[in-house]
Amino acid sequence: MNVTIINIGDELLIGQVVNTNASTMSRMLIEAGMDVGETVVVGDSRDAIWQAVDAAMHSSDAVLVTGGLGPTKDDITKKLLCEYFGSELVESEVALENVRRIFAVRGFELTPVNRAQALVPKCCEVLNNDLGTAPCMWFEREGRVLVSLPGVPFEMEWLMRNRVVPKLQEAFRTETIVNKNILVQGIGESFLSDLIEPWELSLPANVKLAYLPVAGMTKLRLTAHLPHNFPLSTFHFPLKGLYELAGKYIVGEDCETLAELVHKTLTQRGLSLATAESCTGGTIASQLTAMAGASAYFKGGVVAYSNEVKESALGVKHETLEAHGAVSEETAREMAEGVRRRMNADYAIATTGIAGPDGGTKEKPVGTVWIAVSGHKGTEAALLNFPGRRRQQNIDRTVNQAFSMLIKQLCRKD
Amino acid sequence: MNVTIINIGDELLIGQVVNTNASTMSRMLIEAGMDVGETVVVGDSRDAIWQAVDAAMHSSDAVLVTGGLGPTKDDITKKLLCEYFGSELVESEVALENVRRIFAVRGFELTPVNRAQALVPKCCEVLNNDLGTAPCMWFEREGRVLVSLPGVPFEMEWLMRNRVVPKLQEAFRTETIVNKNILVQGIGESFLSDLIEPWELSLPANVKLAYLPVAGMTKLRLTAHLPHNFPLSTFHFPLKGLYELAGKYIVGEDCETLAELVHKTLTQRGLSLATAESCTGGTIASQLTAMAGASAYFKGGVVAYSNEVKESALGVKHETLEAHGAVSEETAREMAEGVRRRMNADYAIATTGIAGPDGGTKEKPVGTVWIAVSGHKGTEAALLNFPGRRRQQNIDRTVNQAFSMLIKQLCRKD
Repeated sequence: MNVTIINIGDELLIGQVVNTNASTMSRMLIEAGMDVGETVVVGDSRDAIWQAVDAAMHSSDAVLVTGGLGPTKDDITKKLLCEYFGSELVESEVALENVRRIFAVRGFELTPVNRAQALVPKCCEVLNNDLGTAPCMWFEREGRVLVSLPGVPFEMEWLMRNRVVPKLQEAFRTETIVNKNILVQGIGESFLSDLIEPWELSLPANVKLAYLPVAGMTKLRLTAHLPHNFPLSTFHFPLKGLYELAGKYIVGEDCETLAELVHKTLTQRGLSLATAESCTGGTIASQLTAMAGASAYFKGGVVAYSNEVKESALGVKHETLEAHGAVSEETAREMAEGVRRRMNADYAIATTGIAGPDGGTKEKPVGTVWIAVSGHKGTEAALLNFPGRRRQQNIDRTVNQAFSMLIKQLCRKD
Repeated sequence: MNVTIINIGDELLIGQVVNTNASTMSRMLIEAGMDVGETVVVGDSRDAIWQAVDAAMHSSDAVLVTGGLGPTKDDITKKLLCEYFGSELVESEVALENVRRIFAVRGFELTPVNRAQALVPKCCEVLNNDLGTAPCMWFEREGRVLVSLPGVPFEMEWLMRNRVVPKLQEAFRTETIVNKNILVQGIGESFLSDLIEPWELSLPANVKLAYLPVAGMTKLRLTAHLPHNFPLSTFHFPLKGLYELAGKYIVGEDCETLAELVHKTLTQRGLSLATAESCTGGTIASQLTAMAGASAYFKGGVVAYSNEVKESALGVKHETLEAHGAVSEETAREMAEGVRRRMNADYAIATTGIAGPDGGTKEKPVGTVWIAVSGHKGTEAALLNFPGRRRQQNIDRTVNQAFSMLIKQLCRKD
């Protein structure tokens, strides 16, 4: 079953907004057992939309269209689809009730412009949009489906998850797809691939493996293709061989990111964390606090950018900085121990390094980073030497390495 | 002049990687006076690429293709284009010299696989890629142009800026485009639009105005369309009327973001900054330290997530927290003053609030945020009430409001 995605909007076409909808939708479709053949962005132009819709309705089983459903005059998708399917606009009871409900919640008066959002082509089925006033519309023609969704990302995502994907799965009796993520750290993708080849070759034909490298970490994604409506409780991925071969590099399962894994682990185990960041400049703290519930374990952090602050806010000794410099094992250790003690936390992470693009020396070139993790069983430090000079990449890699070191310390049995 | 962008790659199509190349390229083309008609993503499939290229070569003046140029077998763009243009692969001296140079810099041996990167279709012109081994190839047919670029974002961006856009401008004798950004804060888009309408109506026909709202801020982008090769030094935007009408909401010019404006202002004026973040959790610090050179002004910050840390690391009084709570004007002020004093900084920013989605009370619902900015002339605080419950949105808006308050305090004459 083949899907084309069409995202409509001048703001996407001119690059004012990055089109995250396409990747979100693709991921959701592929995880649900459908293939995406092409994604297209067009502006708010009648001809461009018509042409893209028509081409896709000839080449795909299903066409998903986002955008162009707001009440303003720029938004023309609904009228165009009405004409394309040879229908007429009628007021939908379901859509009107939804608009009324949302306006009541917000305490606003319903204006004629807003009421017009309940007008839909007579030939479509309205899929209720619990989060917004723009309707989601399902059209069928000669065994092919077109679904029109609002372009607002959180409305689109909710509708995809709760309305569109399940209905497509039923309509096309797609396979049942199960995914599992395994986070691997500390080994390059090609070495990992060689190491786990025997296990990979032993996987059943309906299980596929993908390597997704992100910022110095590899996410292994296993995907099982099972028959339509297969009972999930009876299925398990064969992971024993993987752990036997590469267990020491595996840091976790069932998370999208290492930050999420840290978040879950600390929350479940009731342990607290503090951070002392120099080269990562607050990125570790911001990634953790971006997740609701971080206050359960995150005490706080210090962004110790200047040496002065490393001394005053973390208690790094002046002699340490003098003798070894800010980018050194000794400083990293004192930063981690200092913040752990001062914030009264179970664990602490510290980073100090040269993110680039400039600021390196012969002894400590750009990409030299020390990380320390301090916990009940002591403090560990690691030296990283990143090859590149790109600042954001070096920051992101440092963050992932730091999370990985923390997870390993948290999981250690001894 | 109309351009179609085609981004090739399974990783884009399946949503593993968000396609930032399309928006980066669109922005660069539009800023250079070209129109983008459509952007398309296809996977590493011969048929899909051929079809997309052929359709675009019939509908557009220029087609820009990224991806599929690596040395591995997945990457098929080069052979396909060779066939499409009826040419044959030959070793390009220019491309080979470039591959050699890059391998010499990295200290690697040149393998046959890498040498094959210098093979290009005989009919194309090679545009030298200073940052990588994949060649950038310029094809022409019947007045239309196709350019094939590597998909690696930083290589693509460098090639666009230094090779492709200037050559397209010459080939199509495009207009000269000048842009100017004006950052506006503290007034909603529709109110701003009403307020500055008289000025907008007075703009000459060759100057266009666009509203770009981002996280509670509006970026006004003025674009002037001038003749090909117009001497830029003789052109000035008519901004007097704008400042007369909306001067008090304007926080800066010629920056993409408020973080960049803060970075430039503090650097130029030799002033230092410290941050005390609760609800923004390190995001202010991480946005500033993401820019090279932040160490010139950024002393450091405290992410004071728990009350305990607000007291110990920032010196917020226990009685203040007891009497007014963590989300209060008093706490925000003491946080800002505390971090400014302890980190010995000229200015300090503090944030404390309830980012959501949960954690609100009747008196202090989700979206309640206090910001304080402390400087030589005293401390100012502001209360924000964001309507939504979405955590990341509330964090991003708080960050922008905080930057805006700091900029206003920095710019005050009295």
